[in-house]
Amino acid sequence: MKAVIVVHGGAWAIPDELSEASVQGVKAAACEGYRVLGTGGSALDAVEKAVRSLEDNTVFDAGHGAVLNADGEVELDAIIMDGSSLGSGAVSSVQNIANPVSLARAVMEKTDHVMLTSRGANLFAESIGIKTVPTDTLVTEYEKREWEKQKKYITGVKEIFNSQWGHDTVGAVAVDSYGNVACATSTGGIRHKMVGRVGDSPIIGAGGYADNRSGAVSCTGHGESILKVTLARLIIFNIEQGTEVQDAVEHSLRYMGERVQGAGGAIAVSPSGRWAATFTTERMAWAAAEQGALWYGLNPQEKFQDKLSQ
Amino acid sequence: MKAVIVVHGGAWAIPDELSEASVQGVKAAACEGYRVLGTGGSALDAVEKAVRSLEDNTVFDAGHGAVLNADGEVELDAIIMDGSSLGSGAVSSVQNIANPVSLARAVMEKTDHVMLTSRGANLFAESIGIKTVPTDTLVTEYEKREWEKQKKYITGVKEIFNSQWGHDTVGAVAVDSYGNVACATSTGGIRHKMVGRVGDSPIIGAGGYADNRSGAVSCTGHGESILKVTLARLIIFNIEQGTEVQDAVEHSLRYMGERVQGAGGAIAVSPSGRWAATFTTERMAWAAAEQGALWYGLNPQEKFQDKLSQ
Repeated sequence: MKAVIVVHGGAWAIPDELSEASVQGVKAAACEGYRVLGTGGSALDAVEKAVRSLEDNTVFDAGHGAVLNADGEVELDAIIMDGSSLGSGAVSSVQNIANPVSLARAVMEKTDHVMLTSRGANLFAESIGIKTVPTDTLVTEYEKREWEKQKKYITGVKEIFNSQWGHDTVGAVAVDSYGNVACATSTGGIRHKMVGRVGDSPIIGAGGYADNRSGAVSCTGHGESILKVTLARLIIFNIEQGTEVQDAVEHSLRYMGERVQGAGGAIAVSPSGRWAATFTTERMAWAAAEQGALWYGLNPQEKFQDKLSQ
Repeated sequence: MKAVIVVHGGAWAIPDELSEASVQGVKAAACEGYRVLGTGGSALDAVEKAVRSLEDNTVFDAGHGAVLNADGEVELDAIIMDGSSLGSGAVSSVQNIANPVSLARAVMEKTDHVMLTSRGANLFAESIGIKTVPTDTLVTEYEKREWEKQKKYITGVKEIFNSQWGHDTVGAVAVDSYGNVACATSTGGIRHKMVGRVGDSPIIGAGGYADNRSGAVSCTGHGESILKVTLARLIIFNIEQGTEVQDAVEHSLRYMGERVQGAGGAIAVSPSGRWAATFTTERMAWAAAEQGALWYGLNPQEKFQDKLSQ
């Protein structure tokens, strides 16, 4: 079967000074994930690998590079889901973890639960030997400046998002050569969010969903809107009804815009390897790797192609 | 339009010694909620009122009467959703709050967010003057004994649930005389759960969903299974596809059983006042109030009727 991985680096008004690094970052992550698939690895391993690459890259708001909340702290959310079993693991509002996606995977594989939050997620990390890192290693100088700057102006998070100041989420979806699909999403959330705010990213059916019968999805954008329409599950439902992957994503994003006036983006892949990367925000950095080709884009309607060197 | 409220007190193997009190509790909550609807109140007010009544009743695992986690602490989850706007508020893993459903409503109405977790949820409660209560006022002597007893035997939460020791969730759905629907769900979770475990109850699309175009749902049962199939949203999707409310609930619960081997229950109501209360566990205490009639049941296939005195 045809193996494919698609990744995104967040749907928002990415400023010009970050655009080149964002595109390079998603391309690198897609290549890393595809290398897993190309050597017979699982979709689950591939999406974890790709998201770890994005978490380690400070240009993206996840892991290293995460935004700061209203108290100037980092609180991270992540989910991973295995389409072969509907097994899922998520962490919300966890602190000082460099790769929340791997902690989410441990929740899925080493506990009877699907989601652990806050202190409980950190206690679990400690119990399985995942080390915490100092906050300063996660936060960039850029973020500290932006956080200070916005502190003077903002009156609420809605305004931050609407002004497109908000930084956003990373994710990956993949289908492996056995036809298994998986998704993963990871984020630092919205800058100046309230302490303990959980967005769509770690919520099953909102920030991501994966089912071998239909496909895998990872979402990004205005979290509260994505939650209200359970965007990932909505896209999957549309695919289940026979809608083409690309149309299912477009249709669902349009529905979110009409119904709750929210903008965002999503990536999706079907078990047969059909895929999409679409958004209703100004920009979304995305890349997709399949046999021989690395596709990528940043602005609406862009779809560039590089040869994929393995 | 026809106003209806349906409530549940959790789907699990309710022991005989709790059955009479459980049935009385859901009947009382349905009556309290219906009184709101009968005087022209909103579905949102009605479900909040009914769930507060269940939270205040120590026979149910929500608010007063909540179960204890692995560390012997109370951690509460709740959601409320307004079908007219898809507006939603949720809290997860919040401590020492007597009525988490009202805190969830405050998240919906007083913040730009949908979900607050743990310490952040408690900080928000404090900031709006919702008082914390000592843990001892929430925990019953019965729960303390059960927690101690099980501590000696258990090896994991799955075993607790499978042995039907687990205590479970309350919820309500309603349609008001203006055709607006709403849902609310509240829980203390599963006894001996890991610290920070979040189940389905506070998760939009899993523990509850409400949309004026299709209906409102509140779920209960094995939280991890409900999450994997996004049970509330699945029921709503079935209704959207034209399936009758009762069939939509039955079909979705059967799907959950087949797909992830999970048992549970759900209540649902459509904007036209069609409703259902169905479960695949041993028992679920439920009650429904509509003009002139109070329906209720505990065992499979039971549907008793009392006259509704207003």
